[in-house]
Amino acid sequence: MQSDNPTAAILVIGDEILSGRTREGNAHYLAQVLSATGFDLREMRVVSDDHDQIVAAIRALDRSLGGAYDLLFTSGGIGPTHDDITADAVADAHGTTVGIHPDARVILQARCDRLGFELTENRLRMARIPVGATLIDNAVSGAPGFSIGSTHVMAGVPEVFRGMVDWLIPRLSAGRPVQSDSVEVRRGESDVAEDLKAVAAQYSDLSLGSYPFQDQTGWGTNLVVRGLDAARVAEAMTALKQRLSL
Amino acid sequence: MQSDNPTAAILVIGDEILSGRTREGNAHYLAQVLSATGFDLREMRVVSDDHDQIVAAIRALDRSLGGAYDLLFTSGGIGPTHDDITADAVADAHGTTVGIHPDARVILQARCDRLGFELTENRLRMARIPVGATLIDNAVSGAPGFSIGSTHVMAGVPEVFRGMVDWLIPRLSAGRPVQSDSVEVRRGESDVAEDLKAVAAQYSDLSLGSYPFQDQTGWGTNLVVRGLDAARVAEAMTALKQRLSL
Repeated sequence: MQSDNPTAAILVIGDEILSGRTREGNAHYLAQVLSATGFDLREMRVVSDDHDQIVAAIRALDRSLGGAYDLLFTSGGIGPTHDDITADAVADAHGTTVGIHPDARVILQARCDRLGFELTENRLRMARIPVGATLIDNAVSGAPGFSIGSTHVMAGVPEVFRGMVDWLIPRLSAGRPVQSDSVEVRRGESDVAEDLKAVAAQYSDLSLGSYPFQDQTGWGTNLVVRGLDAARVAEAMTALKQRLSL
Repeated sequence: MQSDNPTAAILVIGDEILSGRTREGNAHYLAQVLSATGFDLREMRVVSDDHDQIVAAIRALDRSLGGAYDLLFTSGGIGPTHDDITADAVADAHGTTVGIHPDARVILQARCDRLGFELTENRLRMARIPVGATLIDNAVSGAPGFSIGSTHVMAGVPEVFRGMVDWLIPRLSAGRPVQSDSVEVRRGESDVAEDLKAVAAQYSDLSLGSYPFQDQTGWGTNLVVRGLDAARVAEAMTALKQRLSL
């Protein structure tokens, strides 16, 4: 698909995904938001709670550090416990250090006051932010995420992650939303390959994909057309349906 | 967690994941199998249906090509359509070419004969295998996966992927299965951080993680102990429960 939208990557940090304990869902949520908003998501990675691995991934993915993509979004590892090492790794990757961010401290103090908690040393860990970063709002549980360079760091708890995404994305400079149309055919992928290829060749500015599935009544294939221009997408879908006599 | 188990990575190939259309599930399934079997999954990546991106990821992840991990498992992009480019990319990464694999052709021909189909050129595309690769059985739909170097290439359709995983994994040299134990506490993560850290320091051969969640009754945290030695895991869990007065 031809696109001059800003490119993006998602980095998920968490042993619980790699151990199979938790099925990743944050990246899937953000992928949907990015498509709908006008960002071109090119890669997702999941790495373990390992300082060097996180630093290497950030450097490989964040263009402001010589990496591959215009924007990098991370999920996980910014809580209060010993295995929450994302802030330190992000600081390291961006050549800075971590300190208690005054605004973050105020946010945490206000929340503790409201709930009648003490702002313990562990709770204050959530105000440890790389020097030079700006905060990402957390309407769910207070402790903020942060942005530095082209890296946007968010929490792993799904409700909090979604809240941060919904706050952050409208504040970024997006391109054009992806337009897509799809049709389901009750044929195997082999039987539609020829027609799909022919239409794809005719519409090289679009992305045409086929996704086979199996259900109770046998095999079927979903055909999907994607692009930035709704009229072109509609035109290609019409051509595809004509060829397939749908 | 200390482990001398073989290390592994999963590479998922597919625009449909990055566009947000499909929520990835194959990597989650394989992650569970790897933990239970004795492989140390260190990284997952999702890349688009792009030749150069797939080649670069394979080279970065497969130790036989100078990459980071002992084993690499891929999902997706080995069907009959124009956007199924995994076989060519894997061949390229491994410095070989693609040809019709005679055994794969026999498998596809037998399946077509049984179902009364013709072995069309598109169907035969699924016998295009890198020269030097060995086949991975596909009990679900015939078209095989393949292994070359340390790269094991499987289909993206979930039923087929699972069938291939279940055939392949018992044929690989595994290490020791991961043992784990977990306990749920009705406290926020900040309130268990201190005790968790103390026990983690005492059991540095194990991995101790905390996973906060939110439900109808408020915040809670799952505490998870993982390691290769069941007795050590049980010992650490007992120590953790004692500290937390559970």
